[in-house]
Amino acid sequence: MKPLKLGIAGLGTVGGGLLGLLQANGTHVANIIGREIRVTGISARNQSKERGIAVDGVEWFADPVALARDPSNDVFVELIGGEDGVAKAAVEAALSAKKHVVTANKALLAKHGVELARLAETNGVALNFEAAVAGGIPVIKTLREALGANRVKRVYGILNGTCNYILTQMQSENRAFDDVLKEAQALGYAEADPTFDIGGFDAAHKLALLTSLAFGTRVAFEQIHVEGIQSITQADIEAADSLGYRIKLLGVSMETESGIEARVSPVLINKDSAIAEVSGVTNAVAIDGNFSGNILLVGPGAGAKPTASAVAGDILDIARGLVVPPFVTPVAQLKAHRRAKLDQHYGSYYVRLALYDKPGAMANVAKSMGDRGISLESIVQHRPQTLHAPRGSSRVQNRADQPVIIITHETTEEAMRLALETIEKDGNVTERPQMIRIEEL
Amino acid sequence: MKPLKLGIAGLGTVGGGLLGLLQANGTHVANIIGREIRVTGISARNQSKERGIAVDGVEWFADPVALARDPSNDVFVELIGGEDGVAKAAVEAALSAKKHVVTANKALLAKHGVELARLAETNGVALNFEAAVAGGIPVIKTLREALGANRVKRVYGILNGTCNYILTQMQSENRAFDDVLKEAQALGYAEADPTFDIGGFDAAHKLALLTSLAFGTRVAFEQIHVEGIQSITQADIEAADSLGYRIKLLGVSMETESGIEARVSPVLINKDSAIAEVSGVTNAVAIDGNFSGNILLVGPGAGAKPTASAVAGDILDIARGLVVPPFVTPVAQLKAHRRAKLDQHYGSYYVRLALYDKPGAMANVAKSMGDRGISLESIVQHRPQTLHAPRGSSRVQNRADQPVIIITHETTEEAMRLALETIEKDGNVTERPQMIRIEEL
Repeated sequence: MKPLKLGIAGLGTVGGGLLGLLQANGTHVANIIGREIRVTGISARNQSKERGIAVDGVEWFADPVALARDPSNDVFVELIGGEDGVAKAAVEAALSAKKHVVTANKALLAKHGVELARLAETNGVALNFEAAVAGGIPVIKTLREALGANRVKRVYGILNGTCNYILTQMQSENRAFDDVLKEAQALGYAEADPTFDIGGFDAAHKLALLTSLAFGTRVAFEQIHVEGIQSITQADIEAADSLGYRIKLLGVSMETESGIEARVSPVLINKDSAIAEVSGVTNAVAIDGNFSGNILLVGPGAGAKPTASAVAGDILDIARGLVVPPFVTPVAQLKAHRRAKLDQHYGSYYVRLALYDKPGAMANVAKSMGDRGISLESIVQHRPQTLHAPRGSSRVQNRADQPVIIITHETTEEAMRLALETIEKDGNVTERPQMIRIEEL
Repeated sequence: MKPLKLGIAGLGTVGGGLLGLLQANGTHVANIIGREIRVTGISARNQSKERGIAVDGVEWFADPVALARDPSNDVFVELIGGEDGVAKAAVEAALSAKKHVVTANKALLAKHGVELARLAETNGVALNFEAAVAGGIPVIKTLREALGANRVKRVYGILNGTCNYILTQMQSENRAFDDVLKEAQALGYAEADPTFDIGGFDAAHKLALLTSLAFGTRVAFEQIHVEGIQSITQADIEAADSLGYRIKLLGVSMETESGIEARVSPVLINKDSAIAEVSGVTNAVAIDGNFSGNILLVGPGAGAKPTASAVAGDILDIARGLVVPPFVTPVAQLKAHRRAKLDQHYGSYYVRLALYDKPGAMANVAKSMGDRGISLESIVQHRPQTLHAPRGSSRVQNRADQPVIIITHETTEEAMRLALETIEKDGNVTERPQMIRIEEL
């Protein structure tokens, strides 16, 4: 069988990993699929950079779009990044030239996924993006193929390694958010400007893609409710721990009567669920199929090698002649993403209140909850010092606040929001109440 | 596109589940893949049995082999079971007639997998068996395709729900093996003759298939070292727990210098590994790829619906035109399974000794270990009553034995075997020493 010829644009972390994989495992792969996978063209910013990997006999292209169009390759591998600009132009050029495309670019797909998928389908080629979600974990392929005969009820996961690393460190070493963030930046786990990760936006990009794949809806990044982990304190992590929970940044998407509820936010999950043990930069994605039941996939969410493994898996599928519509459901049949009102979310909640130490404060809190039909599963009042309030903070100095932890029974988000507004307005608390959803897994 | 026509042989649990899935999700599936999946022929022992599922307009075949040969269907779905007999004859007939085959029959594949794969490859058709390993978990597809560009270093998993259920119950409810087994039988989780499950043979069938897929070797069920869970006592589970471990029946296969080490046995695993939290009848499989890193898949290992989901996923692949060699590596290139000597296994061990309460016994134990170059990480001596020895047993009555728990540093299995033989021969223990491998995950 003829070799499968690759044009690779971008030789950063992932591109370098892919070349390394082809060098290390290329013979093995050729034996299995009965054809050689050969890199025939490369486009990268710096041709002369030492990469420790032989790229002899490969044609260099200054312009990725020219590489994408060039008839010397069968598959265009886009590893440039960026949601617009040259990455988009090159992918469009390749698809229009009836070439298969493999990309790890979640931002591009979250913004232009539907139009690119349409272009791929029109031209009868593959647009594969396993590496765009959860690194080396084969979640796209599982949704498209292995669980393809299921109706998905819910998909959720730990989709950002930076956040999971920070939360895990805060938990295991009892350290403050800012402290761990600085360390993560030093280790290269977090960017200098960490907003994209810790604000939940990276996870939301991935959840937007998973939502489309799971529910047959158009990709709608802007319809995802996003909360980051900046507001999570050591007090929350300790209180959750003592009540049998872990705090994780979870992307969750599910079909409800009023539409699709898709959200990225910190949640409390039961300590003895398998996903609670997913620590550090590891990612995890679970899919609830109506026949498969709950299928959980865990693995490295980033890194040169795992991401290269995912890109290479996509290339293998193309080498074997498999072409599946990028979002499983053909673009013409994708439904609009109808957003569920988050106010109608139904579940239990964790609440941390910095309550004024005055008579009647707790009674007022309980009444505010009761008035909204919220019943309480537990109330725990800790002494401030057990919660490690920062030394010298005004909260500790004047001892005005008594941290109170409340776990509610199931109720609506609207009831919670209104009750907490009342509690705040009535002057019972020294700071905004902390409210975190409890996710039943 | 033309409908894909199925001939289904066997309408037991899985067959019924598959009909249910096609009825519930058929329209959805047809929309996604652009062609209808239609059942045109069925062969089952009892045609008149009420199944709660419409099978009108379907031709019934008394003989599964006739159904397998009949040109009215494109895909033969074998859900009869059994490692020989009619299941084998029907699968052979279908493959010879150039029909794709989907089967959930692990026993058939463990025994005749290579010859059936050769027949499939010769005829250019698929032989898919996702449902044969770990129920609804897409592990075959992940090994064949998603991680296909990796060299696998190790594959391991919780492959038998019955054993995992029993061990979980012993752990969480502090109950004896026999007691939990009886309950599992009453609940339908264990067969009347439970040997196949609790003896580890069911898991070994699955591990034989995973080993072939992972390492490109011929399926060699008889080369797998098999130990069951019958010897695990409450004392072991409690001692492991107190040392930070869980006991699981794990199938493990890895390439070593001296060959493939493939074994099914109870092992101790660290409590805070994700797989330690896999409880009840749930299964889990982990794949260590040289680029992907450790990818863990968790989900229901049995049951009508999850198994039907896996069978339907296999059918989807065929509907999309994907044909991969059954064991990934084409049969002509499969290597012989070279079995590693288990004596050369290198790792840590858990040992429980019923030590005679006499001077010098412990010193003799330590010396026997030391003489074999085994160094000890910890020794814990419990009072017998804390280990819940059965009331009235002779062990408790004469107080002759002192349970001693030893965790060793890494050593060879040969050294351990010889040291324990010496300890037993020297008359230090009242019963055979319990030795369990500690698995680093």
